[in-house]
Amino acid sequence: MVLYAFRYSDGRLFILDQTKLPEKAQYMEITGAAQTAEAIKSMRVRGAPAIGICAAYGLCAEARKNGGDREKLIKAAQGLKGVRPTAKNLSWAVGRMLGALDMPGSLIENLEREAEAIRREDEEANRKIGEYLLSLLPENGAIMTYCNAGALATSKYGTALSPVYLGLERGRRFKVYACETRPFLQGARITAYELNAAGADVIVICDNNAANVLRYEKIDAVITGCDRVAANGDCVNKVGTFGLSVLAKEFGIPFYVAAPASSIDMSAGCGGEIEIEMRGSEEMEFFCGRRIVPEGVKVLNPAFDMTPAENITAIVTESGAVSPKRLKSCV
Amino acid sequence: MVLYAFRYSDGRLFILDQTKLPEKAQYMEITGAAQTAEAIKSMRVRGAPAIGICAAYGLCAEARKNGGDREKLIKAAQGLKGVRPTAKNLSWAVGRMLGALDMPGSLIENLEREAEAIRREDEEANRKIGEYLLSLLPENGAIMTYCNAGALATSKYGTALSPVYLGLERGRRFKVYACETRPFLQGARITAYELNAAGADVIVICDNNAANVLRYEKIDAVITGCDRVAANGDCVNKVGTFGLSVLAKEFGIPFYVAAPASSIDMSAGCGGEIEIEMRGSEEMEFFCGRRIVPEGVKVLNPAFDMTPAENITAIVTESGAVSPKRLKSCV
Repeated sequence: MVLYAFRYSDGRLFILDQTKLPEKAQYMEITGAAQTAEAIKSMRVRGAPAIGICAAYGLCAEARKNGGDREKLIKAAQGLKGVRPTAKNLSWAVGRMLGALDMPGSLIENLEREAEAIRREDEEANRKIGEYLLSLLPENGAIMTYCNAGALATSKYGTALSPVYLGLERGRRFKVYACETRPFLQGARITAYELNAAGADVIVICDNNAANVLRYEKIDAVITGCDRVAANGDCVNKVGTFGLSVLAKEFGIPFYVAAPASSIDMSAGCGGEIEIEMRGSEEMEFFCGRRIVPEGVKVLNPAFDMTPAENITAIVTESGAVSPKRLKSCV
Repeated sequence: MVLYAFRYSDGRLFILDQTKLPEKAQYMEITGAAQTAEAIKSMRVRGAPAIGICAAYGLCAEARKNGGDREKLIKAAQGLKGVRPTAKNLSWAVGRMLGALDMPGSLIENLEREAEAIRREDEEANRKIGEYLLSLLPENGAIMTYCNAGALATSKYGTALSPVYLGLERGRRFKVYACETRPFLQGARITAYELNAAGADVIVICDNNAANVLRYEKIDAVITGCDRVAANGDCVNKVGTFGLSVLAKEFGIPFYVAAPASSIDMSAGCGGEIEIEMRGSEEMEFFCGRRIVPEGVKVLNPAFDMTPAENITAIVTESGAVSPKRLKSCV
């Protein structure tokens, strides 16, 4: 069974509340832009492609609620853009929805058509990314992944996990080592959940054990998703990706970044120009209401980090796998 | 205030139950060998030197309880040796206590004298390790540490954290980045707690953020403790130490292992010969009773990993700082 992060049908948007995984797989209805912003901010829905698509559908839900008030929709869209600053996809998708507001015809129909196009294009991009990644992998093998760049971070298949899903459809089975990904535990809670539900072979490891798995197990590739790619091929992704790229280099293991073109930001010359979202300290200080960092002690909680182009074997987009250095010539 | 992991006075042993930190600093009485074994196994007391010393005092408590029954004590001592297999100090300390059983005079007095000697020697070793480490550090600076190799892992001062405590006594202040150390969170819960209580400047980071702190902050050294050192200088310590050593190498930052001589095992030719304890999957699957890994998904939970000698700038013992390659000539 392949899980879905969201569903939009008959004008209603439902999202899987990922903060409740793996204990509960509970869908909730999103009835407008404010609720969409809350769901994205509090990571009920997360993953660069998924937050872009959900923002698009959230604007459809808002349009239905407010009867298609254009001015209100423009304001709501502008507000959504900045809810999470790092992923390119969010502002990109909202930008497309703003464009749809200017098209002739029914405002609600135009918005829903655009949102559906964004979703469909994402699914197609992921399928293509999966095909390219499959061509880089052995028939069966082992990969390591980080955070969640799977079905629940996208419309379907995922980016980094797309070869696992496509492989399952064709009898190719990969063993997937999922780093748990502190502090939000997207790897343990979400990647493991969706791969297990799909019948894939997944093993969860603590982030600090990645070096040993890369050293002792036969890992064919490390594959991660990406929130924003700079023009020079630097990639910003979930905090911890950079360290993993250093470890992969140490062991000579290919390090692939799966990124749909909507993640590429040619206006950022290098990764250093991309804003890294800092999240609240309580994500690290507490777990299920229990304090794990003593009161009064400082923490650092960046949501993302930057992997330099030289640590990346290839960036895999829907147009193919390219060396980060050649990215400019391919977009 | 410098905290203590344990206290033995008037024939009674009390340990700080570290599983309850940072929410509660609660001491519990240990009345015999079985309770000592339970406290070590469930990591109420942990840290290579501390479990050795507590096992020694636990045998004193056992001797007082059973009226000095030599046969029972030998059996209890043998049982304690294997409770946690990786740290050298546990079997080493229990071996010394077995030796004390053969000495003339009062059995209980001999045991208590030996346990007190082990404790005092550890404190002295830590002070010397601290002096050597201070000589390798700038007047004030920033260090990164891993897990907990502080006062609560030893008799006093700690191994890796000894320069921080000695520094505080002399007005030298170090900023300490403490990796939280999944899954047991010794860094977040214990290192941060004891350093904060002592008035030191401590910042907790997720393990996966270490690479960024090493890249962007001015870190003068990474300093870790050690559970067992092999003859060739390979060091076995808390899982995650190895990955950190690779990152330190990447950024040209000195990587020091603080290890009292009681951690050195000349019978192990290299790190590969040292048994790595695998701990139960529930430590990773649950947090405070809440499931964070989906049911039916496999996990890997080694307690330790091996850092090869070539990644270690110096091993710092009470006899001085030596290159791992020169370890043999110094013991």
